[in-house]
Amino acid sequence: MNEITTFQKKMQDNNIDAYIIPTSDYHMSEYVSDFFKSRAYLSGFTGSAGTLVITKDKGYLWADGRYYIQAANQIEGKPIELMKMGQPGVPDISEFLAEYYSKEENITLGFDGKIMSTTDVLKLKEKLPEKVIINSNIDLVNLVWNNRPELPFSVIYKLARYFNGKNYKEKINELREKLALDNIDCHIISSLEDQAWLFNLRGNDVLHTPVFLAFTIVTPQTVTLFTDNKKVDLVVEKYLNENDIILKEYNEIYDYIKQFKNKRILIDYNKINYELYNSLLNKNNTIINKQNPTLLMKAIKNPTEIKNIKIAHERDGVAMTKFMYYLKTNFGKAEMSELSLSDYLEKLRKKNKGFVDLSFNTICAFNEHAAMMHYSATPESSSKVEEGGFLLVDSGGHYMEGTTDITRTFALGKITDKMKLHFTTVLKSVIALDQAVFLKGCNGLNLDILARGPIWKLGIDYKCGTGHGVGYLLSVHEAPNGFRWKIVPERNDSHEFVPGMITTDEPGIYLENKYGIRTENELLCVEKETNEWGTFYGFETITYCPIDLDAIKPTLLTKDEKDWLNNYHQKVFDIVSPSLSPEEVEWLKEYTKKI
Amino acid sequence: MNEITTFQKKMQDNNIDAYIIPTSDYHMSEYVSDFFKSRAYLSGFTGSAGTLVITKDKGYLWADGRYYIQAANQIEGKPIELMKMGQPGVPDISEFLAEYYSKEENITLGFDGKIMSTTDVLKLKEKLPEKVIINSNIDLVNLVWNNRPELPFSVIYKLARYFNGKNYKEKINELREKLALDNIDCHIISSLEDQAWLFNLRGNDVLHTPVFLAFTIVTPQTVTLFTDNKKVDLVVEKYLNENDIILKEYNEIYDYIKQFKNKRILIDYNKINYELYNSLLNKNNTIINKQNPTLLMKAIKNPTEIKNIKIAHERDGVAMTKFMYYLKTNFGKAEMSELSLSDYLEKLRKKNKGFVDLSFNTICAFNEHAAMMHYSATPESSSKVEEGGFLLVDSGGHYMEGTTDITRTFALGKITDKMKLHFTTVLKSVIALDQAVFLKGCNGLNLDILARGPIWKLGIDYKCGTGHGVGYLLSVHEAPNGFRWKIVPERNDSHEFVPGMITTDEPGIYLENKYGIRTENELLCVEKETNEWGTFYGFETITYCPIDLDAIKPTLLTKDEKDWLNNYHQKVFDIVSPSLSPEEVEWLKEYTKKI
Repeated sequence: MNEITTFQKKMQDNNIDAYIIPTSDYHMSEYVSDFFKSRAYLSGFTGSAGTLVITKDKGYLWADGRYYIQAANQIEGKPIELMKMGQPGVPDISEFLAEYYSKEENITLGFDGKIMSTTDVLKLKEKLPEKVIINSNIDLVNLVWNNRPELPFSVIYKLARYFNGKNYKEKINELREKLALDNIDCHIISSLEDQAWLFNLRGNDVLHTPVFLAFTIVTPQTVTLFTDNKKVDLVVEKYLNENDIILKEYNEIYDYIKQFKNKRILIDYNKINYELYNSLLNKNNTIINKQNPTLLMKAIKNPTEIKNIKIAHERDGVAMTKFMYYLKTNFGKAEMSELSLSDYLEKLRKKNKGFVDLSFNTICAFNEHAAMMHYSATPESSSKVEEGGFLLVDSGGHYMEGTTDITRTFALGKITDKMKLHFTTVLKSVIALDQAVFLKGCNGLNLDILARGPIWKLGIDYKCGTGHGVGYLLSVHEAPNGFRWKIVPERNDSHEFVPGMITTDEPGIYLENKYGIRTENELLCVEKETNEWGTFYGFETITYCPIDLDAIKPTLLTKDEKDWLNNYHQKVFDIVSPSLSPEEVEWLKEYTKKI
Repeated sequence: MNEITTFQKKMQDNNIDAYIIPTSDYHMSEYVSDFFKSRAYLSGFTGSAGTLVITKDKGYLWADGRYYIQAANQIEGKPIELMKMGQPGVPDISEFLAEYYSKEENITLGFDGKIMSTTDVLKLKEKLPEKVIINSNIDLVNLVWNNRPELPFSVIYKLARYFNGKNYKEKINELREKLALDNIDCHIISSLEDQAWLFNLRGNDVLHTPVFLAFTIVTPQTVTLFTDNKKVDLVVEKYLNENDIILKEYNEIYDYIKQFKNKRILIDYNKINYELYNSLLNKNNTIINKQNPTLLMKAIKNPTEIKNIKIAHERDGVAMTKFMYYLKTNFGKAEMSELSLSDYLEKLRKKNKGFVDLSFNTICAFNEHAAMMHYSATPESSSKVEEGGFLLVDSGGHYMEGTTDITRTFALGKITDKMKLHFTTVLKSVIALDQAVFLKGCNGLNLDILARGPIWKLGIDYKCGTGHGVGYLLSVHEAPNGFRWKIVPERNDSHEFVPGMITTDEPGIYLENKYGIRTENELLCVEKETNEWGTFYGFETITYCPIDLDAIKPTLLTKDEKDWLNNYHQKVFDIVSPSLSPEEVEWLKEYTKKI
């Protein structure tokens, strides 16, 4: 019997006709730890996103465009049909299930409500026929998954005042003020980043995201933290006590909130799992579905965080510049591959003071690999980097001083005029957004065309946003700020810009089977001036690494653009060169020279 | 007794405690004819917008920033308090009335529901205490206004196929197809422009807007036009008969729709007066509040309209260029004033073939007058144009071939470097928007920063949109397209761009008590290309008149911007010069020369 057949047997035992297995943890996190990889366990498909629905007949796997090929390969021979998301005629899961149940006699749908967001379940319920009986409290995967990995375990640590810039007391007071505006009796926080930020605590439960599994309940009088108590050492326990934070076990939250009656409760349906939501119903509670106030508070970095983040970027820039030196001076001499170069860069980063972890899996992609926006080299795929072309490296680090995200594309060997046109156009895009000045109130929808416009003029588009918010020793992708020309509700990244927000500026050009170019800097939003016309904001670039002059055609740049590049390179030289060897400094002079 | 006191007496007679007098006609038109100027009659305030509320105590006049000074002057000595809209602490009308009725024993509010939009009344009702009794069917103004002007009267005329490009049958079929998608039994059109467009008929009932007062009801089987039958001559009567359009008297609509029962009715709450809406209630009708489908159909000009509109712009460009010649060659010699120049330009336009009317009151504003965005010269205000500075002329014409709207700012005498910087920056803004290339799906919110960005970089803003849609021998301001960085719901101008839409590109710089600069071209949306990345749109400039080289500092322009200007001027020369005198041609060579 294969996994699907075994699972179908369990479904039958439990009187379930169809069962949904999404890719999520109990907190709707972007990345999940191994315990939660049940979709991969059952289907064999290991991509970062995808949903499996199992009916009595067979399995159906929804995968997006990035994964059509990989998913097809990994499910081959299994009783699973691939549902190519976004292709014409392919229903989404709720459409599929609505259709399925319109024809079926049997009418029970099962899933584990702890790994489905409230938003998703409510949307699903809207579409399903009324007769369908939903069993949302059943983790069938657990019954078939032998040797399932444990829930992640890491010891929680405290971020010192030197790093956080604002202590917990200040943060909780501000949060309570915001909750009072809506007369909230009770606020349940499920998002792991929001809790880590609020408490100034960090962990290591999720790959490349220094958080710990927890829930928090804030009332006007109390704060209760639900987490595995074994993760709390004596230092943190003392800290929690001193701050009147009540500690409870992680799983106790479900029973705990069942007592809530007649309360005004603020939760974010996108972040709260359905099981929690369900526990609040029918007790005369008033539920306010609103974004966690901590989301915006966290996104606006405080002066200490900003000072630190700049330090993190300086160190990160040294690693990146040393990497570029190695690449440029050894190309054609030493043997290099995507994986060996990723490793080389990781070693450089690890040498940096304050380094904690990579902020995401390094994308080191040569030529046609870089045309796949989310390519990640594996031992099987890893290209040798030897003939000429573009190498795209998108990488970053978590430091005690903050999180970085940078992309550089390097020209290796001879490149064509067209490649230079494309590289230089991407640079024009980076500069135009970097140099924006705008009135208070603007969001990413207003500004996106500054970056996308020069590329659109070539009749080319990149099928993603232009940039995203970045956390402080937290997730490298952080709401609610971003650059994007159309609203994508689930991204929640169209908040107006506020000084202190940090957003990436990363336009690109991707030509299938040829190459990919992306240049990515991080931008700090700053106030420019306030006058009779209003308050004007702009950006300060905080990423420091040369932009490859070998790939730039200077005649395509205006005087203002050349000035920008020359000033930028001068700044890179000033910041990075003190940490380089004499040979590296000589080399850097050449790569930061005026054009 | 003054008008207010007389009015208060009538209020008392009719048991009304407060009465609202907005500025509107029965169709929520932008401009109103004299019959509807009751707010001006009662308050003395003659601005184009404003609302008067009269209570038992006194009157309250809401006026916006453009009119603070004028309104204060015009109501002086009357028992009216000026309510400066948008100023801190000044309530809006619904807040004011909610507050008023919260304290009052008396509880009747009156207004003429025929001149209030459904949207406005529903919003008002939401805010008022429940006890308030609304009498929405009482035109008290009529009882006190002796010698009130008549409702406007003009004979309706037919637009030939040569001008409209699509006959009524085609339009009504398309409209019915759209209504069928929503299973609509009945669609009531109140917007005068929509009806004129649908029927290919025009009139002259509203200043500078070639429309006629009417309502239309479209069902799957019938079309009924409610208008003053005396406006229908034999030609139009025959045309209506041939097309099975039932003709009824203008005022019959109110009784007519009272019979509607069990119908699915589509109306636009922003365009339908409250009295009409009210007549549909409580008869088991299902009311769908949606934008008239004709709005979008009308905004996307057909190939014949586009061909014609370009002809109209060519003729209009000749008038504007001749005006510029006169201004530039006579400045400092002949006596000129804002009014005399307006008249001179009007005479030039009137000579053009196909000319019907001005499309709005010409704005001809010298120096500090131009800093007031909606300045319109009166005999009292009209400046002499003699010392140096900027003259801003915003004007346009209705032609049988379409409607134009153009602004040019002219340097007269010596101007400062700063003035040149500002003028050249406005030009950069015009060009950046003009040259946009963008993916299908973009709207004005996405594109606005292209125009506003260069001005924002100087720390300056203009407090209005960057551009608006333009009708075809209809309103010079037409929804649903426009350029604006923030959504303004009542403007309804954020529809995605569609080829065939025409939108003005008119950024500006306005320095209080100094000068105003605006350069305005009209842009036709066109498809650029469709490829693997999607469908790209851009714009074609259709306005032809030199942009004053005397005010441009060429060193501030990039090579691409200079190329744009040189190409544009070459095109202006080619189009306009055949209609000029030899002296004018010689002069134009200089004003369209390459820089």
